[in-house]
Amino acid sequence: MANTLNIGIIGAGRIGRVHAASLVYRVPNAGVLMIADVNEQAAHEVAARLGIPKVTGDYREVLAAPDVHAVLICSSTDTHARITQEAARAGKQIFCEKPISHSLAEIDETLAAVEKAGVKFQVGFNRRFDANFRRVRRAVESGEIGEPSLMHIVSRDPAPPPVEYVRRSGGMFLDMTIHDFDMARYLIGAEVEEVFTLAGVRIDPAIGAAGDVDTAVIMLRFANGAIGTIDNSRRAAYGYDQRVEILGSKGSIATLNNYPNQAIVSDGQSVRRDLPLNFFMDRYTESFATEVSEFVDAVLGGKPVPVGGKDGRVSVVIALAAMKSYREGRPIRIG
Amino acid sequence: MANTLNIGIIGAGRIGRVHAASLVYRVPNAGVLMIADVNEQAAHEVAARLGIPKVTGDYREVLAAPDVHAVLICSSTDTHARITQEAARAGKQIFCEKPISHSLAEIDETLAAVEKAGVKFQVGFNRRFDANFRRVRRAVESGEIGEPSLMHIVSRDPAPPPVEYVRRSGGMFLDMTIHDFDMARYLIGAEVEEVFTLAGVRIDPAIGAAGDVDTAVIMLRFANGAIGTIDNSRRAAYGYDQRVEILGSKGSIATLNNYPNQAIVSDGQSVRRDLPLNFFMDRYTESFATEVSEFVDAVLGGKPVPVGGKDGRVSVVIALAAMKSYREGRPIRIG
Amino acid sequence: MANTLNIGIIGAGRIGRVHAASLVYRVPNAGVLMIADVNEQAAHEVAARLGIPKVTGDYREVLAAPDVHAVLICSSTDTHARITQEAARAGKQIFCEKPISHSLAEIDETLAAVEKAGVKFQVGFNRRFDANFRRVRRAVESGEIGEPSLMHIVSRDPAPPPVEYVRRSGGMFLDMTIHDFDMARYLIGAEVEEVFTLAGVRIDPAIGAAGDVDTAVIMLRFANGAIGTIDNSRRAAYGYDQRVEILGSKGSIATLNNYPNQAIVSDGQSVRRDLPLNFFMDRYTESFATEVSEFVDAVLGGKPVPVGGKDGRVSVVIALAAMKSYREGRPIRIG
Amino acid sequence: MANTLNIGIIGAGRIGRVHAASLVYRVPNAGVLMIADVNEQAAHEVAARLGIPKVTGDYREVLAAPDVHAVLICSSTDTHARITQEAARAGKQIFCEKPISHSLAEIDETLAAVEKAGVKFQVGFNRRFDANFRRVRRAVESGEIGEPSLMHIVSRDPAPPPVEYVRRSGGMFLDMTIHDFDMARYLIGAEVEEVFTLAGVRIDPAIGAAGDVDTAVIMLRFANGAIGTIDNSRRAAYGYDQRVEILGSKGSIATLNNYPNQAIVSDGQSVRRDLPLNFFMDRYTESFATEVSEFVDAVLGGKPVPVGGKDGRVSVVIALAAMKSYREGRPIRIG
Repeated sequence: MANTLNIGIIGAGRIGRVHAASLVYRVPNAGVLMIADVNEQAAHEVAARLGIPKVTGDYREVLAAPDVHAVLICSSTDTHARITQEAARAGKQIFCEKPISHSLAEIDETLAAVEKAGVKFQVGFNRRFDANFRRVRRAVESGEIGEPSLMHIVSRDPAPPPVEYVRRSGGMFLDMTIHDFDMARYLIGAEVEEVFTLAGVRIDPAIGAAGDVDTAVIMLRFANGAIGTIDNSRRAAYGYDQRVEILGSKGSIATLNNYPNQAIVSDGQSVRRDLPLNFFMDRYTESFATEVSEFVDAVLGGKPVPVGGKDGRVSVVIALAAMKSYREGRPIRIG
Repeated sequence: MANTLNIGIIGAGRIGRVHAASLVYRVPNAGVLMIADVNEQAAHEVAARLGIPKVTGDYREVLAAPDVHAVLICSSTDTHARITQEAARAGKQIFCEKPISHSLAEIDETLAAVEKAGVKFQVGFNRRFDANFRRVRRAVESGEIGEPSLMHIVSRDPAPPPVEYVRRSGGMFLDMTIHDFDMARYLIGAEVEEVFTLAGVRIDPAIGAAGDVDTAVIMLRFANGAIGTIDNSRRAAYGYDQRVEILGSKGSIATLNNYPNQAIVSDGQSVRRDLPLNFFMDRYTESFATEVSEFVDAVLGGKPVPVGGKDGRVSVVIALAAMKSYREGRPIRIG
Repeated sequence: MANTLNIGIIGAGRIGRVHAASLVYRVPNAGVLMIADVNEQAAHEVAARLGIPKVTGDYREVLAAPDVHAVLICSSTDTHARITQEAARAGKQIFCEKPISHSLAEIDETLAAVEKAGVKFQVGFNRRFDANFRRVRRAVESGEIGEPSLMHIVSRDPAPPPVEYVRRSGGMFLDMTIHDFDMARYLIGAEVEEVFTLAGVRIDPAIGAAGDVDTAVIMLRFANGAIGTIDNSRRAAYGYDQRVEILGSKGSIATLNNYPNQAIVSDGQSVRRDLPLNFFMDRYTESFATEVSEFVDAVLGGKPVPVGGKDGRVSVVIALAAMKSYREGRPIRIG
Repeated sequence: MANTLNIGIIGAGRIGRVHAASLVYRVPNAGVLMIADVNEQAAHEVAARLGIPKVTGDYREVLAAPDVHAVLICSSTDTHARITQEAARAGKQIFCEKPISHSLAEIDETLAAVEKAGVKFQVGFNRRFDANFRRVRRAVESGEIGEPSLMHIVSRDPAPPPVEYVRRSGGMFLDMTIHDFDMARYLIGAEVEEVFTLAGVRIDPAIGAAGDVDTAVIMLRFANGAIGTIDNSRRAAYGYDQRVEILGSKGSIATLNNYPNQAIVSDGQSVRRDLPLNFFMDRYTESFATEVSEFVDAVLGGKPVPVGGKDGRVSVVIALAAMKSYREGRPIRIG
């Protein structure tokens, strides 16, 4: 295969722009040939800034372009499954943002299409590529902390999204916790067999009125006997909070947040530091770049992608079970 | 009332000796007049070391002594309820180690006896007097972190007790987690309405053979809508681990462990510190002294005791519910 | 020798009271028989609170008491040398607060008297007994950080003492830095050969008017080639600041301050903790108890005292050299 | 002026490659037109990787190119002054790596040439652009910590450079400490008036044989009365160590090192984290990008450069005084 992967990007929204910039500036063995968006003007702006040669308002032009080897699907969630299937049929290598779909049936159709086409399919769980969480995974994998028994994931947003967004999001479990479900499986290295959820509306009644929750704790029982908890809040006054702690038979590993600087101020009131990085784009800058870089490497090198279609599917299965547990007030078995 | 509270100690085991030393050395307005233990030799040794004038093998002598105003009941758990009832009938002010009993019926009898006698009754939940947890409580009470929504308690022992002990302990929930149930109520300032437990044997099969678990996560739903998790392990390779974190509407508060020193060593391998205080006696030295001191102050000052009989009862209720949830695999409502 | 050391305390001021309480409550093999103070009322109050049998307004009664084996000299600095000499002639074992004297001639006379009498003589450099600094010493002694090359001591008071006190203090180097000079020798394990001082009045012009400085950095060259700096300020807005860092050939060790609790609060402004322990009595509580306990052990066990007369002398030598360096604006050789 | 600054890079060594990559990937308003190196092959490799259109073995071609607006001088130290002068005469805007020269006479000539030509001249003190040190500067500038009184800079390399390099380096003060001298002036915001140095060979006798030292502490007295110390070592077993602490009248600010991740491992031995970022290229990645970006902005926007020729000169003045102080064993006045 060639030394450079020619890529078309579908979707010029926030995450599409991030991936486009990563590919142009930080992934030497990738070239971005096209960018598509239903809002063609948005696509034009990105293309001009990053020197992307072609722009289109119709993603099908990207799929039809013979010199495009791979596509990044960064369009709205409800189009992920359909475009993935079309891209697979067009023989493109595929990187798709999470979630593949909110419907398991649609996910299964999509995975079948991908498998039939024999193309690579990576799902955008970028946090697996973060230095902190990779270090935790390494501690588990290498046996540094022994057999993992207990895990606690903290995952809190600085502030809730607009209610408009909440309404279309599929609910907190499919929109936000889905990252944590993937993280849980990745870090423990085993599948989830049982889920129990306590949740509520603590932050904004409008979120409740939209049929969603804003605060939740989800308990997970893993096939290897480990037990995990995920602690979610749509608001943390101090900013974006992303941590994990695992206890194993030989010790524990815990991560702290990332901060804009390492300075500590002491005065007559307190000993303090500035707030942690507040925006997921800042917190996960490196992980976004690494995930697309590893996608490019996997395609060019003929290696498996680091996060596959099954990973995309299972996290939705757990999210649906978490929601069911919350609604029915009882633990739900999986699989 | 007098300026000094005359105290008799019942039980010269580990915790009895700790309280005796605290009273002698660190509580100026208390005097220890007698110490009793079925193992009279043990009581003699403590008395000699601390200058306690009278020793007996029969606790009833303590209850009969007219110059003894108050008793500390530090005997084995199965005697707590009975001795408390007898002490109440003898008109003594009472400090009793936790738990009052493993039987709710016996607890209710005991509380009734205490109430009838009109004596004070403090239960030995020493951790409420720890500087770290008091600071957390203050942050909740003062509104510093706003309305609490999520709480996570980590409570892990350095190593499991002998299986012999496990067998008589009433099980991990009544023996170990009971402290955390009390802490949860104390810190959140609301009652627990629902409990769900996942637990297992991860450390020592002999604990399982003895009918107990050694690893557990218990989820709590509070009357005020807050959600809590308690993370318990009978073994942590790095030592005694006692932490809590609470998220409120205005921010969070989290405690770290206590360490024997504040030194950080950096060499070619790592940047590290020595292990946290490994033994609950070292970790909670100050809290043990403070709890008996506040008991003495409450009696002498005619004020309510800081941890009452109801606190002793409710923590057992939650422990029994946690056990039931574990056995039946479903959430259990309380109250 | 007996199992208990009978002690007389000379001086019922702040430090005398601290030592008296430590001996009574925390040193089982010591008994306090007498306490003397020119302010006899002050001595009476301490005696009443701690149960010390005899009180006197004249320290010579302590020296004359045949059942007093050892004395703690906690009177004002200008009396240390004279009382030590008299105590030595009376055959008492001696613990004397620092400094022995501001005059090297008087110190030498005192050391000669002690040596002639063949009694033990410990100087009150309590910080050597602090858990943090002991850990640092252990890292140097054990070779954990290899050969020490660079040391940085931070030693800052929360607020300057009254100017009245400054005037009689002998100057900051003899009053405050003297602790750091002793610490430097103790931690590096080598003698100081050269001193250079930069200092000034940055906090209170009244301190300058009294002939003293309130801010200083002193550089030390040690006989083993290591280089040290001492960073002194009479005021730190955030409280009492006592830290040290040593770089050795295999790594470094650095200490942090002690805090009243291990809680961290995060809100919309900052991630912060409460201020460090603000008062030297709180910060060094344990070290004060340990130093008198080790004095008692040394006397009863016939072992050398942990901080001897030479240590008391050398720290004054360095302090005088630091002052001279500041006044003459040049490095001063020692020894 | 145009929207894009056309740049020629002189020197394709380590730092030249870093700046070239920053300009190509991270500075949208800069274009790299040429790269020159006496080792033309090295220049070709960089150009190929980064898409730089022209390559030359003779930097004079860069100076002669009419479409090159600005040059980055990244050649060997002994050529900085000469090439800067030629570039100034050619009317180029200039960014020059530090130090301008080891000779004050040559520096003065260079500054005169720059001034005469009326071009911009920025010196490569990249650490001023680091997030940690900028935060410290902000704390001083904004009055957050009040008037600064004491500063301590720690600046230690992971391992000494080859002796070959040491020999040509101009000595540790001109090669390594020069960064710290600039940092000291930048952070305190005042000039240095007096310098005193203690130094020695603690790490490698070969460094001593080459006429240099490998361990030093330099004391600085500032015009505003503040006192600073710089603690330098050519080796720190745990890696690259770059910290600063400033005490002001209202509080202090201190920075910690940067780490590759925020994970903490606890096991039976210790509570630890991985070593800090070990290589100055990793530690200062962002600062290198920011300094060239701000140079480009200054030129395009007609604003003053953030680090000027005087800054380059003064740091050499202090370095020469530090060396003199070390050789003569006495404090040296400056200016």
